[in-house]
Amino acid sequence: MTPFSYKNGILCAENVPLPLIAETAETPFYCYSSSALEKNASEFADAVKKEGLDALICFAVKSNANPAVLRTFAAAGIGADIVSGGELELALAAGIPPEKIVFSGVGKTEKELEAALDAGIFQLNAESAEELETLNEIAIKKGKKAPVALRINPDVDAHTHAKISTGKKENKFGISWEIARPLYAKATKMKGISPVGIDVHIGSQLTETAPFEEAFGKVADMLHTLREDGINISRIDVGGGLGVVYRDDDAPPSFKEYAAAVKKYFGDAGCRIIFEPGRRLSAEAGILVSRVVRVKKTPAKTFLVVDAGMNDLVRPAMYDAYHAVAPVVENGGEKTLYDVVGPVCESSDVFAKNRLMQTMRAGDLVAFKAAGAYGSSMSSTYNMRPLAAEIMVKGDRFAVVRKRQSISDVTRACSLAPWQEEG
Amino acid sequence: MTPFSYKNGILCAENVPLPLIAETAETPFYCYSSSALEKNASEFADAVKKEGLDALICFAVKSNANPAVLRTFAAAGIGADIVSGGELELALAAGIPPEKIVFSGVGKTEKELEAALDAGIFQLNAESAEELETLNEIAIKKGKKAPVALRINPDVDAHTHAKISTGKKENKFGISWEIARPLYAKATKMKGISPVGIDVHIGSQLTETAPFEEAFGKVADMLHTLREDGINISRIDVGGGLGVVYRDDDAPPSFKEYAAAVKKYFGDAGCRIIFEPGRRLSAEAGILVSRVVRVKKTPAKTFLVVDAGMNDLVRPAMYDAYHAVAPVVENGGEKTLYDVVGPVCESSDVFAKNRLMQTMRAGDLVAFKAAGAYGSSMSSTYNMRPLAAEIMVKGDRFAVVRKRQSISDVTRACSLAPWQEEG
Repeated sequence: MTPFSYKNGILCAENVPLPLIAETAETPFYCYSSSALEKNASEFADAVKKEGLDALICFAVKSNANPAVLRTFAAAGIGADIVSGGELELALAAGIPPEKIVFSGVGKTEKELEAALDAGIFQLNAESAEELETLNEIAIKKGKKAPVALRINPDVDAHTHAKISTGKKENKFGISWEIARPLYAKATKMKGISPVGIDVHIGSQLTETAPFEEAFGKVADMLHTLREDGINISRIDVGGGLGVVYRDDDAPPSFKEYAAAVKKYFGDAGCRIIFEPGRRLSAEAGILVSRVVRVKKTPAKTFLVVDAGMNDLVRPAMYDAYHAVAPVVENGGEKTLYDVVGPVCESSDVFAKNRLMQTMRAGDLVAFKAAGAYGSSMSSTYNMRPLAAEIMVKGDRFAVVRKRQSISDVTRACSLAPWQEEG
Repeated sequence: MTPFSYKNGILCAENVPLPLIAETAETPFYCYSSSALEKNASEFADAVKKEGLDALICFAVKSNANPAVLRTFAAAGIGADIVSGGELELALAAGIPPEKIVFSGVGKTEKELEAALDAGIFQLNAESAEELETLNEIAIKKGKKAPVALRINPDVDAHTHAKISTGKKENKFGISWEIARPLYAKATKMKGISPVGIDVHIGSQLTETAPFEEAFGKVADMLHTLREDGINISRIDVGGGLGVVYRDDDAPPSFKEYAAAVKKYFGDAGCRIIFEPGRRLSAEAGILVSRVVRVKKTPAKTFLVVDAGMNDLVRPAMYDAYHAVAPVVENGGEKTLYDVVGPVCESSDVFAKNRLMQTMRAGDLVAFKAAGAYGSSMSSTYNMRPLAAEIMVKGDRFAVVRKRQSISDVTRACSLAPWQEEG
């Protein structure tokens, strides 16, 4: 099953022609393939199972927090990697059991730590000595023992975009090894803390295994040392970061290669292995569909002005990210070199530069591929553009899983100050 | 009146101590000073009046679309520069009369053009020959004549951040002069179009007058040529772009210098001059207040982890923008070098690097200054972090003008697909 493919020249999500969805849902809209989400989850699970790993796979909710997407993963037995109290609420509501939820992030508030302990989640990944102290106090008050992994900052270069590289020592993330080792010793004496694991996450959209292996090697050494120190480590959280195909020539590690790398370092560790894939499960299972508002010809360029903007999909503006742009209806005609741009009044609202595509006209539909991760979850209403609809497809069926906002939805929480007269 | 200043060591918005607001509204929150908004508006209006310009000042709604802010400007007699149908709806609802509204933007849809014509707004700034054709057809159908300025792309380097520089020929914005001149001639023959003006906007956050003057000089030449061509131009839209003070040593042109530059080129043009300031009216009238979640010490850095994130204020992550960070309560104590970071799981979620500030503790409040523009209007719920509250202050009073979102607000429009079982 290819989630998005042409049938008689018309791009379909599974078996549903995208123009049909555009008719009822209008544009722009995100479209997710349930089968692709399920397939990604099961292939990931199979790959780690084949390597004999005792795995807990937690979907990184930040990549796509749509409740229908989370429910799909919940039904597939996948857990959740959360980074906020909001994501905790969503994951639980989607039916992900607390024993499959791990909580990452540098800025967990006391409220969020309390909520996590109350829910009884599987693990909290502590990002600093200071957080560990706070968590300990809260857990003691509640008469609980928090299952904790310390997130290690391995000072590894992930060879990815600086904004999503997280494992260098100058980053805000994780705990350096020289601090972590004595902190584990201290943690074993904390009444509210059970230091059960080591966590590492070096970045996002990694396209080679070498940086993973470099980090895993360091963690394996730490595990050895900690056990010598008498710390009972039973879990390794290898984080996420596995890249996806944005450009045709992107060749990120396969699930198998990735699982093999994990096995190489932790196969004999006698540990539960926690995986936190986000993008790799969701990106290629989603697209953003948009309509051409107009074709603008200038002496320098031909612009395809579409009705999605950087507010809908910020990755190109934010990370200079590449998304393939495909016509929804193939016309077999001539090709034109386009800059594909949105309507937002900012020069960064450009989705693609110098793309050779079939010649398009106003009203035509285009699809931005691999938009299922960090698409809708990062979207905003900038330029007072309501949030796009989100659609889920399964076989011949499709459903609106997030209604398009109206302007009154956007401003629902707003009111004038009492001293401003109405009318 | 200084909108934000210390009284007895406590940072106040006008006369309201910020800790008082934090107590009732929680953090993070945006806080706007009505008096500062009003003062900026009146000083701008006075400056152009003193130069004898027949001015229409239209606030760029994209910089801050809060309805209470818009109402404040409406009451001060300021119009609106809008870039979407949503902004049109908001501007009208805020009490800005249609005859003070101009509509900019490269991607206006047919629906948006219709709404603008129905509302009878002052002017549409057409960004392409293609848009002009569409507008003409719509206007004819409605039996109307659309008052239009063509937005000229002057191919001028604005010396500002590439993402907000809009006047170079490879940008998606505007019409090059060689196309514009014949297009004006054509427009005079279009039954639905009244080509009344020339529009130019070269970028945002300009800190010198030279790029403005370069663009204005080109527009003045065009005006001369168009009049020789027999085109009756009665309006010049000089756009916006006037910078503000983010760093102490920023010295953008004063209102007076800016108005004088406009007068120099258009003082004798016999034209109505339309100004589209955004940031200059709103940025310094607003701050973002956040609470320190924890202080994280690492061998490389000391991080002040605050409860606002890049989802609340994206400018540092998006444009490497600088915002001054001030303690809300002065403690007169020692100073520490901090990286001020948010809780979002991304390395770009850093507000400030290597800032020497008074030594802070968890629970302390900080204020990000000059956050009244492109702050809330660009905010998102990334990492499932609900949108921050917005507060407006006037003298001794303050009011919540946008309630903090709850998670159920964020997911209000979401639903599972029918094939996903509830429960």
